Amino acid sequence: MTKHYDRFQPTICINEDDHREFDAIFIGGGAAGRFGSAYLRAMGGRQLIIEKGDHLGGQCCKNACVPHHLFFDLTVQLDQLRRFGGTYVWPKLDFKPKLADIIQMYLNGRENLYDFMFEQSKEQLGIEFILNHEPRIIDNHTVEVAGRAFKTKNIVLALGSRPNRPDIPGLHLKGVIDHTSLVEGVLDYEPERMVVIGGGHTMAPYASFFCALGMETTVVNRSPVLKKMDLETKAYVLDMMRERGVKFYENCPPLAILGEDRVTGVKIRTPEGEKVIPCDTVFLATGMRPNSDYPRQALGIEVDAKGTVIVDEYLRTNVPNVYAVGDLIGAPMEMFKARRSGMVASRNILGVPTRWQVGMFAEQFHSFYEVTYLGLTEEKAREMYGDDLMFIRMPPGDRSIALPAAERSITYSFLAPELSGFQKAIIQKSTRKVLGLHHVGFGAKEGFQYLSWIMQNGELTIDDFAEMNELFLNPSHFIQLARLRAGQRELVNL
Amino acid sequence: MTKHYDRFQPTICINEDDHREFDAIFIGGGAAGRFGSAYLRAMGGRQLIIEKGDHLGGQCCKNACVPHHLFFDLTVQLDQLRRFGGTYVWPKLDFKPKLADIIQMYLNGRENLYDFMFEQSKEQLGIEFILNHEPRIIDNHTVEVAGRAFKTKNIVLALGSRPNRPDIPGLHLKGVIDHTSLVEGVLDYEPERMVVIGGGHTMAPYASFFCALGMETTVVNRSPVLKKMDLETKAYVLDMMRERGVKFYENCPPLAILGEDRVTGVKIRTPEGEKVIPCDTVFLATGMRPNSDYPRQALGIEVDAKGTVIVDEYLRTNVPNVYAVGDLIGAPMEMFKARRSGMVASRNILGVPTRWQVGMFAEQFHSFYEVTYLGLTEEKAREMYGDDLMFIRMPPGDRSIALPAAERSITYSFLAPELSGFQKAIIQKSTRKVLGLHHVGFGAKEGFQYLSWIMQNGELTIDDFAEMNELFLNPSHFIQLARLRAGQRELVNL
Repeated sequence: MTKHYDRFQPTICINEDDHREFDAIFIGGGAAGRFGSAYLRAMGGRQLIIEKGDHLGGQCCKNACVPHHLFFDLTVQLDQLRRFGGTYVWPKLDFKPKLADIIQMYLNGRENLYDFMFEQSKEQLGIEFILNHEPRIIDNHTVEVAGRAFKTKNIVLALGSRPNRPDIPGLHLKGVIDHTSLVEGVLDYEPERMVVIGGGHTMAPYASFFCALGMETTVVNRSPVLKKMDLETKAYVLDMMRERGVKFYENCPPLAILGEDRVTGVKIRTPEGEKVIPCDTVFLATGMRPNSDYPRQALGIEVDAKGTVIVDEYLRTNVPNVYAVGDLIGAPMEMFKARRSGMVASRNILGVPTRWQVGMFAEQFHSFYEVTYLGLTEEKAREMYGDDLMFIRMPPGDRSIALPAAERSITYSFLAPELSGFQKAIIQKSTRKVLGLHHVGFGAKEGFQYLSWIMQNGELTIDDFAEMNELFLNPSHFIQLARLRAGQRELVNL
Repeated sequence: MTKHYDRFQPTICINEDDHREFDAIFIGGGAAGRFGSAYLRAMGGRQLIIEKGDHLGGQCCKNACVPHHLFFDLTVQLDQLRRFGGTYVWPKLDFKPKLADIIQMYLNGRENLYDFMFEQSKEQLGIEFILNHEPRIIDNHTVEVAGRAFKTKNIVLALGSRPNRPDIPGLHLKGVIDHTSLVEGVLDYEPERMVVIGGGHTMAPYASFFCALGMETTVVNRSPVLKKMDLETKAYVLDMMRERGVKFYENCPPLAILGEDRVTGVKIRTPEGEKVIPCDTVFLATGMRPNSDYPRQALGIEVDAKGTVIVDEYLRTNVPNVYAVGDLIGAPMEMFKARRSGMVASRNILGVPTRWQVGMFAEQFHSFYEVTYLGLTEEKAREMYGDDLMFIRMPPGDRSIALPAAERSITYSFLAPELSGFQKAIIQKSTRKVLGLHHVGFGAKEGFQYLSWIMQNGELTIDDFAEMNELFLNPSHFIQLARLRAGQRELVNL
């Protein structure tokens, strides 16, 4: 692949022949800024991204979505090699895989992604941008950068977020990392005992990855982990992590990270009293915080206690002609939110008034599986609808059943059926409406995108599922399982 | 897992306390018969399946969907081990994987699936069935089996299909197999040189699997292979099979399978004249033929030249009160067709008149990738809409770009980017409607089910894609790529 730019150099990609004023300057060229820019440009407007970092595309390709997907793939690979090595097609895993090598592999590939982002943005999308330059916002119509003052009709703040630092002593110690520093290669040793602090969607993939690499891995969280999840589905996820060796301390606040200059342990409070978990590395998975300090100082942008920029339904901040998009405006800090909010801001800027609505969306994260869920949990559904509920589960009870089975899960179905996944649909009996869908396995994510779209635009019923044309073996078995029950007037669990 | 039945014994699961006449006897307990039965039972009717084989669920779990998914998983695993062995997390593949071992693994697991089918059908679905007994159809209201004559209001023929035997000499030779005999362990040696005859959705996964196992693999077809596919997408699929070592002879009719008692080669006609491809095994992937001989003889059921049972829009045959479903009624011989047609027959039988319509559906098959496609090919779209077309491709040209990337493809994205997949959306410029979607990669199948449902129930436009909430990194990048262009009034390729 030919390189299209040198990311270590300041880069200015501006069409100097275009003398129109900018409709918008996007401060930040991550997902929100880049997609907002592409949309604005596509509508015929003129924009400029000013990105102080060395690439377009933001955290996703720098240290977030991309590495955790790569690490997930290696996690599953290692799980299968450890389990099946020496049989059928799997050789014995006869060496200890090195985290440092994997990080280096990631960093090599990242260059290619940066380069593609550059090339696509410049050549295919025709957007204008400046990289490796710190912008200075003069006022709501002026941004200074690289010694030039650019006038603009609007400013779109797209500054993203950064990892939260929990309020415990010892964060400064060597060996305390998070998902952003991990991939920059800050570790000069191979961790052997890892404590992951946190309980959300970042905890699960990294704890699983560390465990798969052979590290003794312990998760510590002040409250229950994976709080948004359906409890039965969560139980499957946690059981499967425990089965691989991950230890959990839920409801055990971390009190301090211990050590002289480098980490030696984490002190936690358990119901039985204080306890020290010895470790050589601590991974913080304690959420993200919007990068709102600078615009607050520069423009007086209003933020809430968490640093979230306050916007109206058109994504306007309190300062006229200044919009905010992406992680800056708070949860969900997901790619679709970043990109779609960028698009909505651009429409509003170019005179197509569009309300920002998050809409229905599915949640996803990785463990040793892809976990995807949408709509209500069983607990929430019971709260709302009592006994007016019907459930479809696979496996229906006994986990040793060789289902679910589809790509990637089927290897487990045949060789370790308890590990082949879990899925559950929650349906309202009286209306036959699908209320919630929960999936632990492989390959269901693509489908959940469209299921959320269908559910957002109308009802999805068990009878709709029965009428669909499944592609069997499908990662989620919802369609065909629904069909087995859809003939019933009074729906019975399956 | 506890065993629930002995598949070597005749089994009669009839509720002898129920004295109602059967609403339907299903001849055959495969996907069509079992789902038709479940639906009829769910509606409150009474049914009986008579299956001469040893299990419910038909070919899918016996020798079709299930094994080819398992073999696909092993194909990808072997591809990665051969390519990356000795680096990062992959040990060197230091032994030759044995086909016979894999078949045995499959056969062990198959028992579990049969058992689950039995248990689910009996306990959860409450359907009545007889296994390991040959039915004799006396007339359109009477079936004799196991020495008893059962009266029924209707008969549903659900007899499935069997592999076509092409019209060439040498089919009797030892070493000539198909996907049904392969898994019964008919080979008492490890094949080293395999010729696959055929060019459809069965050719690709098995040729890829044999190649991944280390066999010298050659595909022979009398016409172009994968004829239904978009040509550009097909080119990617074939290039990727060639890259792994599969050889293709398209438009080269096989003339004879050669050998004394066992296969030694296949004679083909090429544009340069006749040629012999030496081999020790021939795999026939030459389509399926409906099992319509018996009902034609027993009841005078009308069939066409291909043996397809002729049905009206309510799935009725020419004989009153006799329906036909599943592979018996012809293409598409897919699971959704079998199951949904069973459901439709049951509705009609119980007085809920329902027209059979295949509806919109996506195609799927395996190679070294999951291949999924829906709607128009570029060739067909050009024929219909000329230049009124816009295309979104990933990669847009240069295959060395590290995209697409999502679960499973991302390992290739980082280590062998040319191999990370290909995807293409075809959109009508003037109406902005999505006409065709084509995907070579991993994990898109689940989504294509719902995309076909959305497209069947109305339009899907590029603007709809732009409004969806993607789960990034998603296996198909359609949503976010569409969003990069959706701002345009006049759509430009991406």
